[in-house]
Amino acid sequence: MTDRPERIQDIAHLGSVELLTPQPARSLWYFRDMLGMEIVHQSGQSAYLRGYGDYATSTLKLTEAKAAGVGCISWRAVSPQALARRVAAIERTGLGLGWTESDFGRGRSYRFKDPDGHRMEIYYEEAKYRAPAQLRSALKNLPMKFTGRGVAVRRIDHLALLANDVGANRTFMQEQLGFQLREQVLFDQGKAEIGSWLSASPVHHQVAYVKDIKGGHGRLHHFSLWVDNREDVLRAASLLTEHGVFIEAGPSMHNNSQGFYLYTYEPGGNRVEVYTGSYLVFAPDWEPVTWNEEERGTGVYWGGALPESFLHYATPDIEAQSASPEKKVPLFDPA
Amino acid sequence: MTDRPERIQDIAHLGSVELLTPQPARSLWYFRDMLGMEIVHQSGQSAYLRGYGDYATSTLKLTEAKAAGVGCISWRAVSPQALARRVAAIERTGLGLGWTESDFGRGRSYRFKDPDGHRMEIYYEEAKYRAPAQLRSALKNLPMKFTGRGVAVRRIDHLALLANDVGANRTFMQEQLGFQLREQVLFDQGKAEIGSWLSASPVHHQVAYVKDIKGGHGRLHHFSLWVDNREDVLRAASLLTEHGVFIEAGPSMHNNSQGFYLYTYEPGGNRVEVYTGSYLVFAPDWEPVTWNEEERGTGVYWGGALPESFLHYATPDIEAQSASPEKKVPLFDPA
Amino acid sequence: MTDRPERIQDIAHLGSVELLTPQPARSLWYFRDMLGMEIVHQSGQSAYLRGYGDYATSTLKLTEAKAAGVGCISWRAVSPQALARRVAAIERTGLGLGWTESDFGRGRSYRFKDPDGHRMEIYYEEAKYRAPAQLRSALKNLPMKFTGRGVAVRRIDHLALLANDVGANRTFMQEQLGFQLREQVLFDQGKAEIGSWLSASPVHHQVAYVKDIKGGHGRLHHFSLWVDNREDVLRAASLLTEHGVFIEAGPSMHNNSQGFYLYTYEPGGNRVEVYTGSYLVFAPDWEPVTWNEEERGTGVYWGGALPESFLHYATPDIEAQSASPEKKVPLFDPA
Amino acid sequence: MTDRPERIQDIAHLGSVELLTPQPARSLWYFRDMLGMEIVHQSGQSAYLRGYGDYATSTLKLTEAKAAGVGCISWRAVSPQALARRVAAIERTGLGLGWTESDFGRGRSYRFKDPDGHRMEIYYEEAKYRAPAQLRSALKNLPMKFTGRGVAVRRIDHLALLANDVGANRTFMQEQLGFQLREQVLFDQGKAEIGSWLSASPVHHQVAYVKDIKGGHGRLHHFSLWVDNREDVLRAASLLTEHGVFIEAGPSMHNNSQGFYLYTYEPGGNRVEVYTGSYLVFAPDWEPVTWNEEERGTGVYWGGALPESFLHYATPDIEAQSASPEKKVPLFDPA
Repeated sequence: MTDRPERIQDIAHLGSVELLTPQPARSLWYFRDMLGMEIVHQSGQSAYLRGYGDYATSTLKLTEAKAAGVGCISWRAVSPQALARRVAAIERTGLGLGWTESDFGRGRSYRFKDPDGHRMEIYYEEAKYRAPAQLRSALKNLPMKFTGRGVAVRRIDHLALLANDVGANRTFMQEQLGFQLREQVLFDQGKAEIGSWLSASPVHHQVAYVKDIKGGHGRLHHFSLWVDNREDVLRAASLLTEHGVFIEAGPSMHNNSQGFYLYTYEPGGNRVEVYTGSYLVFAPDWEPVTWNEEERGTGVYWGGALPESFLHYATPDIEAQSASPEKKVPLFDPA
Repeated sequence: MTDRPERIQDIAHLGSVELLTPQPARSLWYFRDMLGMEIVHQSGQSAYLRGYGDYATSTLKLTEAKAAGVGCISWRAVSPQALARRVAAIERTGLGLGWTESDFGRGRSYRFKDPDGHRMEIYYEEAKYRAPAQLRSALKNLPMKFTGRGVAVRRIDHLALLANDVGANRTFMQEQLGFQLREQVLFDQGKAEIGSWLSASPVHHQVAYVKDIKGGHGRLHHFSLWVDNREDVLRAASLLTEHGVFIEAGPSMHNNSQGFYLYTYEPGGNRVEVYTGSYLVFAPDWEPVTWNEEERGTGVYWGGALPESFLHYATPDIEAQSASPEKKVPLFDPA
Repeated sequence: MTDRPERIQDIAHLGSVELLTPQPARSLWYFRDMLGMEIVHQSGQSAYLRGYGDYATSTLKLTEAKAAGVGCISWRAVSPQALARRVAAIERTGLGLGWTESDFGRGRSYRFKDPDGHRMEIYYEEAKYRAPAQLRSALKNLPMKFTGRGVAVRRIDHLALLANDVGANRTFMQEQLGFQLREQVLFDQGKAEIGSWLSASPVHHQVAYVKDIKGGHGRLHHFSLWVDNREDVLRAASLLTEHGVFIEAGPSMHNNSQGFYLYTYEPGGNRVEVYTGSYLVFAPDWEPVTWNEEERGTGVYWGGALPESFLHYATPDIEAQSASPEKKVPLFDPA
Repeated sequence: MTDRPERIQDIAHLGSVELLTPQPARSLWYFRDMLGMEIVHQSGQSAYLRGYGDYATSTLKLTEAKAAGVGCISWRAVSPQALARRVAAIERTGLGLGWTESDFGRGRSYRFKDPDGHRMEIYYEEAKYRAPAQLRSALKNLPMKFTGRGVAVRRIDHLALLANDVGANRTFMQEQLGFQLREQVLFDQGKAEIGSWLSASPVHHQVAYVKDIKGGHGRLHHFSLWVDNREDVLRAASLLTEHGVFIEAGPSMHNNSQGFYLYTYEPGGNRVEVYTGSYLVFAPDWEPVTWNEEERGTGVYWGGALPESFLHYATPDIEAQSASPEKKVPLFDPA
């Protein structure tokens, strides 16, 4: 029997993600018409969206900005007490920013930065979604009608962030927020931590940190949305191709996480994943799975290898900003 | 902000289920050749099996017995401390039976009965599965090779138990084990609790209690195994039909739980579900979904209605035992 | 080696089907918004639609009428010479009605009735679909963009007609049009021909004749549209249920034809099948598969049994017309 | 109306393919245990196999040989008269080889070579498969039980041959055998015929000819087997990977043919495709779809690009034979 302290289970799940886009109208078209999300609110430079299966009112906040990237990443605590515990822990690290007033559909939240500088917040009070009549489902346990529009993503799943020091950010999430480490890519005989996948629930990962090989800070690798079946990912591939949306990789199956995926760039430039499969982790004493250079291979279990851009492109796009006014994002033309 | 006490999160997941069978050889054939589970151990009158994705060594214990039914239902605690807390709580109810020595692949466990008399146990020490060479997967994060044999169930998912007093058992699981109530069927304007679905994790339900309309005790409605895709359930339907296994209901989609399912009887007589879909519950303040007589309908969202036998048949089969030596289980002939 | 005469292969495929509807606006909503067909033309009381994979300009003609039912059923000949041969053969039977001018997207056709009185025509000249810019596919070999709207049926597949004398109609299709008999339901030791499934191509059946147990004439049992995957049928079930469209049977799998299906009623009252799977028949000397009362069972391989209405309801609905002004079609309310 | 002569429809379908293998035991393991085919007969150096849905007794003949490659390719005529007509036509070309005695499950056949030197035969008499008791299906219209073993391919679909002069072989199949040209890859402004896809039935293609860039003769690019669902291809990818079988490309979707595929090498070295999707061609006046250098792209609609080996490797492997005794086929180790 082990003597190690009990793992804190104070974070319930990824609450919402704010994406920044220099192309707000086209990004809205992408998330609403292509991915099938619903717009529930618009305010200032932001639109609030949701997947048909998300229980919260809104899970994606799309905000106009000069450059693509990720804004605030929100985590829901399991209770007011848990919120208080996490706030106290974060404050001790010196990374806390303080309490904010409520945002749409939410109570107040406590803002902080992870060691790499990504903006995050933690909150407890959440308004459950109440669908208007025309969006009410025939199922009492489904928050919103399945409209079948576009890819029809069910809910948000996770996000992957770039960081200069993967280990520092991984440790922060483990120690201050109680995340469990699920998988790691370790190069150079375990000395170089290339990527770490973490979660606060049985979902395989809710956040991943991957080495920023360009030395940036606070950047986004991808934001991931869930569909229920692999067929939905295949259908998405045809639908996105027919509408001129660039598919960077997949449909294919990852070795790490066993996820079945495709990656696209939304018109603002952020990488977006349509995702399913993977596996749930139930073991409280899970032993992280590690992959070295050779085992990791191309990052795929089967299917086409991940392209170079998957390693080099992130938002904001440092090279595009510093070197050239030209657009580096693949062109697409929503017909 | 609420003042209610924090929900205890001491149970990690359903650890294993023991099924009793009067037809051990044919039941083994069913779980090994039809459902595709692997036999990892045999001892005395019991065989120990696992799905290819289960992290534990064994998740199904098949034990020869005079009548079909469920034996011991095992729950894993999240930590030794959690185990101690739950044992203390159970002991206070008077339903505790005491500690047992370790079973195959497990450390010691604390035995108890739920109010209806089902045997249960709680434990923490668990041996993770280490596959022999010929069953090692090409994936480092998959405990065992995907052999593709038969239905190829990935893991155990949940079970449904009959009870005379659904409310008493539901309350026991909530209060003593910290389960969250997910959905309920309430007839007679909420006064008659027909069924309750509960879980200790984001998995929709790990146990369900349903009214035993025949007044039995300790009976099993069904045991459920997970496959990753709806296509797997459809494929299972053809495979089982080709091999003469009786399909009682489905493939179809439940309204409650949104599960996509089919139900068969294993040769010993126990009802077994091949299951996927459903939805994860992330909300710490989840409001249980309730269904009345009318809303519940046939229990299906779409697809064929559940047959009468779904309401009347359970194991052990009280009528078969009391009234007649004849076999009530549908005939099947494994070719 | 056989001495029998060579089978004529003069019919290429089912060209189009005309459905009659007393609810033209709601029927259009069903076929356009729910099934995802495209409206290519409207003229008089008719709208012309197509599936995204149909090579012809239009494959469904929806015509306003007092009662639901099937209008003209069109067959395309493989060549002008084949057309001439079939016209000569039909004229000899006395069932010919004569040549008509071209309809939208078609050259002239020869009209006739089958022995039961269903209106049919045969033609050769067909305008291939040329998509407007906004509906052009990214695939050169796909006639129209896959928009993913609603069920997104790919193409029309077949239709099932009721007849008083199944054998007479089956013989007519075999002898005058060169169809091959694929499967039959024969009751009463082969003396009662309940249903016959026929095709002029490797597609399992393009037309079926089933006994009209109410003694009507010229009636429609169902019209069937193709999707590529079983998942599409499951997705259709959720989509149709969410929008209040009545599903009469399925998703399930037929024994006869091995088709995977669901049946709905379109708002005008006609039964419409969403269909995939089945099998192609390549054998030139195919021996028809016959099913008796017992083998036929419920008509399903697995899944819920076909309901009574499947045997008793057809369009036009004789009982509704003769006995009562009340609507017999299940209510639905497109949200 | 056109005056062109009627297209002959004398060929029903691809009857069987003979594959040559220097690794007969391991090739048998691949086709039986991995792809799930059934061995129906063994004689001399050959084994005869079938898919569960093939109506003929055997559709794949596996023959031990010094080098991998394709042996005799068999086409079934629609009638004895059609057979006689095709034999007469072939004899006029000087490519006829004469009549052979019956092979297992077949009557006599007429042997010939295509212009590139591939051995072919045409026959009419075919013994339909009669399953032994343990392999009889629960479905009367399914020739053999669906056992679900391995990939469980349903039937053979098509094959792709390399040729020095694609046009000459394409013309031969059109003019002597009545195949319809479906799609073409034409480079250099239409002057270089890189590939042509042809069929004698609505199946998109039963044979393809692709330019042999190494100047060989009579070589095989790939042999293709059908599964019913895209999920089956995804499942195959996991199953083959788990058993160490090399996957060269896919799962992915072709632009040409719209097929959903994966390519592996069987242990003998021949490229084998697991295939589904595609589209049926019903138009008797089909206009071949042509792709130039740019449109063809990587040959995929979406998914990973086809690797270099897809262009350079074929069987027999000319380079391996001439230059080196070393094995060029990727290693695999059936566990």
